[in-house]
Amino acid sequence: MTSFTVSTSRREALVDITEQVAAAAARHSQAAALMVFSPHTTCGILINEGADPDVAHDVLAFLHRLVPQSSHFRHVEGNADAHIKTIMVGSSVSVMLESGRLRLGTWQRIFLAEFDGPRRRTVWVQALAAAPEG
Amino acid sequence: MTSFTVSTSRREALVDITEQVAAAAARHSQAAALMVFSPHTTCGILINEGADPDVAHDVLAFLHRLVPQSSHFRHVEGNADAHIKTIMVGSSVSVMLESGRLRLGTWQRIFLAEFDGPRRRTVWVQALAAAPEG
Amino acid sequence: MTSFTVSTSRREALVDITEQVAAAAARHSQAAALMVFSPHTTCGILINEGADPDVAHDVLAFLHRLVPQSSHFRHVEGNADAHIKTIMVGSSVSVMLESGRLRLGTWQRIFLAEFDGPRRRTVWVQALAAAPEG
Repeated sequence: MTSFTVSTSRREALVDITEQVAAAAARHSQAAALMVFSPHTTCGILINEGADPDVAHDVLAFLHRLVPQSSHFRHVEGNADAHIKTIMVGSSVSVMLESGRLRLGTWQRIFLAEFDGPRRRTVWVQALAAAPEG
Repeated sequence: MTSFTVSTSRREALVDITEQVAAAAARHSQAAALMVFSPHTTCGILINEGADPDVAHDVLAFLHRLVPQSSHFRHVEGNADAHIKTIMVGSSVSVMLESGRLRLGTWQRIFLAEFDGPRRRTVWVQALAAAPEG
Repeated sequence: MTSFTVSTSRREALVDITEQVAAAAARHSQAAALMVFSPHTTCGILINEGADPDVAHDVLAFLHRLVPQSSHFRHVEGNADAHIKTIMVGSSVSVMLESGRLRLGTWQRIFLAEFDGPRRRTVWVQALAAAPEG
């Protein structure tokens, strides 16, 4: 298991972590896949388009409207919305590797989805083995 | 593959299954990760905060408002909302292991997310191998 | 890694790909699990009920209402809704195998979730190794 940290600068942000994940992948030339895991409960991990930053803007704006911060929640810390968004997005993704290189679609990038920043976040990475042939 | 069962007591509930998953993990001292999988279509698996039960309450209340049970659905069993919530949450999570112990963040717990209980549910667990070094 | 292609016939559709995934599984008699991954940013992969086609109809109709296509999004391609739905559903699922056969629940099927078709889509499949015993 390896890890890296990410500092987020706003309450809600999609931070592109593809390069950090690729660096971890490069140390595992025989791995078939990499688990990328957020050990936090108010930020998740997702895969989507990175070419147009408007996509990240639209995703965050939509989720912000869908799950308002002040919507009659009980949780006293005032961040119930961030927990709910994290559950909707998920805490982890798995991506395939080939000879230590990430296999992603042309437009895909890996993002940490911050919903209760700004904070310093940790991302865990674990390499998984390919099944034997046959 | 191992499995365990969970009985849910209400239509919608988050049931903490971390201890059952940890018990399965303890039998796999050499595994890198554990898949935790729901073989059902109206309950999912998720990871989020377990310290404050108000978080689980807020999550369920929000999803209940977002996907009403009676919202002009076609599916005649009357539980289309439960299928939709299961898709939003997901049917499975993967968690990392170290020497047979679950690696979770400080506040993270693993939950079965029941959306059409009360029922007796089964959870499947599969240990995955670490990639060889280098 | 293997792959197969799927042609979708409408803008939004759930296409049952269980048979294609099962065919890939049959080539991996020693694998513990299979990752099923969409390399696209406007279609995802999900697991849910396949017996009653009304479930797929209800899922798509609900998401269509929840994330309107024209909802003040910035992304100029006009498919921001498809990116958001893909994030909510997820780009990938993992399923367990036993002797090269998919282990799914009685009612579960694997679907490609198209949100910006009609298009020709590719699905990637990777077999993962079981952890050693003990």
